Amino acid sequence: MTTRFAFTVEFDGRPFMGWQRQAHGPTVQQSIEEAIHAVTGETAVLHCAGRTDAGVHGLAMRAHADIEKTIAPFRLMEALNARLRPAPIAIIACEEAPEGWHARFSCIRRSYVYRIVNRRAPLTFEKGLAWQIPQVLDHEAMARAAALLVGKHDFTTFRSTQCQSDSPVKTLDRLEVIRKGERIDVHAQARSFLHHQVRSMVGCLALVGMGTWDVKDMAEALKAADRSRLGLNAPPDGLYFVRAEYPGEG
Amino acid sequence: MTTRFAFTVEFDGRPFMGWQRQAHGPTVQQSIEEAIHAVTGETAVLHCAGRTDAGVHGLAMRAHADIEKTIAPFRLMEALNARLRPAPIAIIACEEAPEGWHARFSCIRRSYVYRIVNRRAPLTFEKGLAWQIPQVLDHEAMARAAALLVGKHDFTTFRSTQCQSDSPVKTLDRLEVIRKGERIDVHAQARSFLHHQVRSMVGCLALVGMGTWDVKDMAEALKAADRSRLGLNAPPDGLYFVRAEYPGEG
Repeated sequence: MTTRFAFTVEFDGRPFMGWQRQAHGPTVQQSIEEAIHAVTGETAVLHCAGRTDAGVHGLAMRAHADIEKTIAPFRLMEALNARLRPAPIAIIACEEAPEGWHARFSCIRRSYVYRIVNRRAPLTFEKGLAWQIPQVLDHEAMARAAALLVGKHDFTTFRSTQCQSDSPVKTLDRLEVIRKGERIDVHAQARSFLHHQVRSMVGCLALVGMGTWDVKDMAEALKAADRSRLGLNAPPDGLYFVRAEYPGEG
Repeated sequence: MTTRFAFTVEFDGRPFMGWQRQAHGPTVQQSIEEAIHAVTGETAVLHCAGRTDAGVHGLAMRAHADIEKTIAPFRLMEALNARLRPAPIAIIACEEAPEGWHARFSCIRRSYVYRIVNRRAPLTFEKGLAWQIPQVLDHEAMARAAALLVGKHDFTTFRSTQCQSDSPVKTLDRLEVIRKGERIDVHAQARSFLHHQVRSMVGCLALVGMGTWDVKDMAEALKAADRSRLGLNAPPDGLYFVRAEYPGEG
């Protein structure tokens, strides 16, 4: 008899080669699986709502693992956090998952935010945690270009060549550009995303903000459905997995 | 002929032994003075609105230096930022100071914020940038205790034994406790503060939040004007110098 535990995970992606286990460097999945092994003696596999690339961060990634040991969720969370130190990974919530619940396959909506700091001065606190762009960005033009991408489209232009998704057609529910002083946040929501989709969309939005592209160039890049038309892929630094939604959750 | 340049400085205090030059480790003052020397060939002395301790951060510290070289403020700022890399220090504004202006002596109000993260999970992004307190804090009791400290008092209880101020009597204009979810920010404003005053006040507020002290204990600690009555000095991690105000500035 195993219990499926659902975890909410916060992590600073800077020191990691991404979420998924890799032969050549530390990952978030490996760190948590090793902590589970240390606590339970079991070799559990951790599944997550959306695997992140090297250098990408998580504010509330959802994940699950099946564990045989009888342990209360709160005690498991505390024990994992103690084992995870000093890695910048924290289990911020843990509960028994509902029957049949799967962190990846049950997820009906994913939210990301991409953080841009639009200033000439170099980053201090946020080095590796945001994309610093020195040229003054026209965030209103960026917002107009973002609006073009919302809806159901073939997003081939904004898709990594390594993407394993069956189809390049996705429905983007939200792509919003919000400026507060020197900060520009791009909020993205969809049932699911292609590999590199958010970073590719943000890279092209930045080109629009700089005036290198106009809004029409964005429309044409989307319509072309051709990866070679991608203007710019934004660096991983500014990307955060924010939220995964499941049926029946508030 | 020298020009007095006024700087606004953002710095992550984690790698530094504080603001002021030290024999035994890197400081913010030393880093900027070395950058000025690299750019101008001059040995200028940097004065600031409020020297910070090791591990304390700055969002907008004000400082000045007198420089002989003829250089536009924008070019000086860019050159200093280029030299400061990769130290987490950024000059975020630079201008010629008005006649007689002094970063320290002309300053009429200083603002600090102290950031507490009130949760059991360890910090990830904010390690060294906030004080994590696992026990649930009663922020309303903290707010009541904070209100007692506002006004003109002898703050001897909340003063480091190394404090060089002539008098322990200070007028505290604001001490406000604001909770947003797991975050509790304590905002402090005064014309000037004693050494360790904000950290000592926050340490005692945390005791009130934990229920170790009640509001009356805070009143008695203040009234005692006795350093041995200090309950707890908060760690430097959560302290940020936020703002310095000068006559005639917006």
